[in-house]
Amino acid sequence: MTEFFGEFLGTFILILLGNGVVANVNLDKTHSKGAGWIVITAGWGMAVYVAVLATADISGAHLNPAVTLGLAFSGLFEWVKVLPFILAQILGAMFGATVVYLFFKNHFDITTEPGAKKACFCTAPAIRSYGSNFFSEVIGTFVLVLAVLLITLPQLDYVSLGSDKVGMGSLGALPVALVVFSIGMSLGGTTGYAINPARDFGPRIVHTLLPLKAKDDNDWSYFWVPFFGPVAGAGLAALVYLIINLMIN
Amino acid sequence: MTEFFGEFLGTFILILLGNGVVANVNLDKTHSKGAGWIVITAGWGMAVYVAVLATADISGAHLNPAVTLGLAFSGLFEWVKVLPFILAQILGAMFGATVVYLFFKNHFDITTEPGAKKACFCTAPAIRSYGSNFFSEVIGTFVLVLAVLLITLPQLDYVSLGSDKVGMGSLGALPVALVVFSIGMSLGGTTGYAINPARDFGPRIVHTLLPLKAKDDNDWSYFWVPFFGPVAGAGLAALVYLIINLMIN
Amino acid sequence: MTEFFGEFLGTFILILLGNGVVANVNLDKTHSKGAGWIVITAGWGMAVYVAVLATADISGAHLNPAVTLGLAFSGLFEWVKVLPFILAQILGAMFGATVVYLFFKNHFDITTEPGAKKACFCTAPAIRSYGSNFFSEVIGTFVLVLAVLLITLPQLDYVSLGSDKVGMGSLGALPVALVVFSIGMSLGGTTGYAINPARDFGPRIVHTLLPLKAKDDNDWSYFWVPFFGPVAGAGLAALVYLIINLMIN
Amino acid sequence: MTEFFGEFLGTFILILLGNGVVANVNLDKTHSKGAGWIVITAGWGMAVYVAVLATADISGAHLNPAVTLGLAFSGLFEWVKVLPFILAQILGAMFGATVVYLFFKNHFDITTEPGAKKACFCTAPAIRSYGSNFFSEVIGTFVLVLAVLLITLPQLDYVSLGSDKVGMGSLGALPVALVVFSIGMSLGGTTGYAINPARDFGPRIVHTLLPLKAKDDNDWSYFWVPFFGPVAGAGLAALVYLIINLMIN
Repeated sequence: MTEFFGEFLGTFILILLGNGVVANVNLDKTHSKGAGWIVITAGWGMAVYVAVLATADISGAHLNPAVTLGLAFSGLFEWVKVLPFILAQILGAMFGATVVYLFFKNHFDITTEPGAKKACFCTAPAIRSYGSNFFSEVIGTFVLVLAVLLITLPQLDYVSLGSDKVGMGSLGALPVALVVFSIGMSLGGTTGYAINPARDFGPRIVHTLLPLKAKDDNDWSYFWVPFFGPVAGAGLAALVYLIINLMIN
Repeated sequence: MTEFFGEFLGTFILILLGNGVVANVNLDKTHSKGAGWIVITAGWGMAVYVAVLATADISGAHLNPAVTLGLAFSGLFEWVKVLPFILAQILGAMFGATVVYLFFKNHFDITTEPGAKKACFCTAPAIRSYGSNFFSEVIGTFVLVLAVLLITLPQLDYVSLGSDKVGMGSLGALPVALVVFSIGMSLGGTTGYAINPARDFGPRIVHTLLPLKAKDDNDWSYFWVPFFGPVAGAGLAALVYLIINLMIN
Repeated sequence: MTEFFGEFLGTFILILLGNGVVANVNLDKTHSKGAGWIVITAGWGMAVYVAVLATADISGAHLNPAVTLGLAFSGLFEWVKVLPFILAQILGAMFGATVVYLFFKNHFDITTEPGAKKACFCTAPAIRSYGSNFFSEVIGTFVLVLAVLLITLPQLDYVSLGSDKVGMGSLGALPVALVVFSIGMSLGGTTGYAINPARDFGPRIVHTLLPLKAKDDNDWSYFWVPFFGPVAGAGLAALVYLIINLMIN
Repeated sequence: MTEFFGEFLGTFILILLGNGVVANVNLDKTHSKGAGWIVITAGWGMAVYVAVLATADISGAHLNPAVTLGLAFSGLFEWVKVLPFILAQILGAMFGATVVYLFFKNHFDITTEPGAKKACFCTAPAIRSYGSNFFSEVIGTFVLVLAVLLITLPQLDYVSLGSDKVGMGSLGALPVALVVFSIGMSLGGTTGYAINPARDFGPRIVHTLLPLKAKDDNDWSYFWVPFFGPVAGAGLAALVYLIINLMIN
């Protein structure tokens, strides 16, 4: 129950700050309008940092179904907890997206471009092409989950994801944040790097339910790409991780 | 007395560097004019870093009445020290704002836009709407104070805020700095993220007293938003922290 | 064999993320088009971070023939492993460049400027002048390899490059990443800072083989600069390192 | 002798990378032309990181007469070594500026704006006003040297500047780099933040001697500001440090 709450709280903070930076940069009349890709990617990276920092010692701070599944595929996480964790992550993401909407309510009201508003909720491809877009999400998530898994390699002294006990203290949340910062800068421009099924699916539900003015299409036909792409990427990362483990031991 | 001086010195450094980056970017004819939101937010984050680095071992480096109150609400700080700490923070902020004025005197003199000059002292909403603006300050401060409180969770090995003894040395000041960097990028565009009553109130007094040319309105009607919003956010963070503590123990 | 695989995997990740950030910023219609030099250089720095993080404990994460040679020149790495390491690095770089192409396929197809596409594979001089360009690559690599060598100075407690055991945990991959970030910002504008023979040579082969539309010249006449410049820089760094070692001991 | 060489090498690297980033951004036809203030300030911060990383264990990595004097004023450094250290720093800075010139030779040749070329060597005020400019250099250096001194507070466990032994390993060079990054963003726009007599004086000599085309005035009438301002700032920081020490003990 405590772990469930940790995943809910952590994913809430992740989406509050992550979708928040998109709103901060995209919506009209904010002080930070048009701040650019460096702010978007550093903003997402630091969102991961704050969310993991806050909840690493409560639930381990997966905050992402792809991470939870990647750990489970690799035998590092109990399968019985997988569904509750994913549910908590999706609910946390929905709550986060709702607070982002309330936070930026006046700016949503005056922004006229529907796509700019939808981007504050869920991702959209720069060039629509389901095969390529799916491939993008697979590769981006593969990098994320492989890095997470290799950080936990038993031969290293650290075990608890995000907050290992070997001297990093609260900086232990930084490595995974820098990985997400990296993925955003290097691989984020094709699909907007969901690399997390809850990050796209939860806010897309909220976008569908909210009475936004001049609302963009909810684009549920695209939903499966940022949902199942990350799942496939997590599977691929677990496979490589298991092969490396075999080679080493 | 030493702790009081630490809070004064630390908040002085915080405002010198934090309001300094606003002046550096906003005022006319600086080498850094128009450097953008990434510099504003990284500048504030690093201002926190330097200020906490310098004073963590003198006073614990709260440097913010919301942090002091959040710790007191949570039973982690003695109530008897709260008012002296807040007073030291406000005085430090006033001194910092005064030195920023002297530092950039020639640039204040030639800058014609009154709002650009006032922004070097205190915050202003992008869209004035007291309810929304208050909500922004509550949420932004909630994230800051919750992160600070969770860093101090006793089950973790680190206790002293900002400079825990477990191997981080002077990098122990980095986590809280990255949290402020994150809040600025993600939630700073609506109100300019005071998230610290002393940071807005102290410099607003200085702006009122200084004989600036073409001075903007001091806007005391807005003062309560960045003052009491952070207090409410600190209370909310303490509440969540205490609930988490109950769940864990 | 495990080490060989580590070098292959690490250099693959390095080029996927490093050449990826160039594609992300340069190619038409990405979300991140035109993000600027700060994203290019931070993107390459973080590419090093992720690649070293992932493979430091598998192979030591050289990921660069200049690093492998610099360590061998200095007596810190066995000569018998040098050629296999370099081969693994070049193959990893070729695989990385191929995945970057597949990842951004639609964007390559619509980008008309041949130079923008070639820059996603290999480097090109801003002003062609073989002597100066070679000097640039020597100096840039000298800084990188000298920093790597001095990190390993035996009087310091850390030995394993990138992931020393003294308390840094997975942040141990950060120093070398920050060095590359620094070199990019300060010395990258003349030749595009290959500072790694595999990073330029492997992707240049892939560029030559791929059926890109409106393909730029493969410019094999320039190939030797980013290949042998880094080798010379590594030699110079080893020389300075050995002199320092003599002075200290 | 070894320490002298360490200061020479470290200041060489500092100026190579620090003045390098100015050249990289300012000179015509580099890949990074116009990259902006975030690159200038992050570039200088990372230049400090690499230089301290490389030489902290050789000489303690002062790399700045203001740091050497601040430590000596505070009783933390032997006066007999002060002049040799400063001499090594100035010679290192001159060598660094010379290599920057050779590195960017073709770009210096085609850049027509004399001020852009001089900025690659020494600082210049945004608004000339000797009193204000001196004050800027005093305050900027005060922040730098105070932070350096407080990092060395004996009650903290770390003593060796830049590379304390308490678990930070090669990340021990990061705090002082972040302080310089902060000063640049917040206080760098008025005078270009020399905050280091050697950084301005050494390269100004080189600018005077070099046969640059369309060379700007060497502006020796301004030389004393970035030379003695930092010295005064170091004195002020030492004073505050000694007062804090008295209060604590």
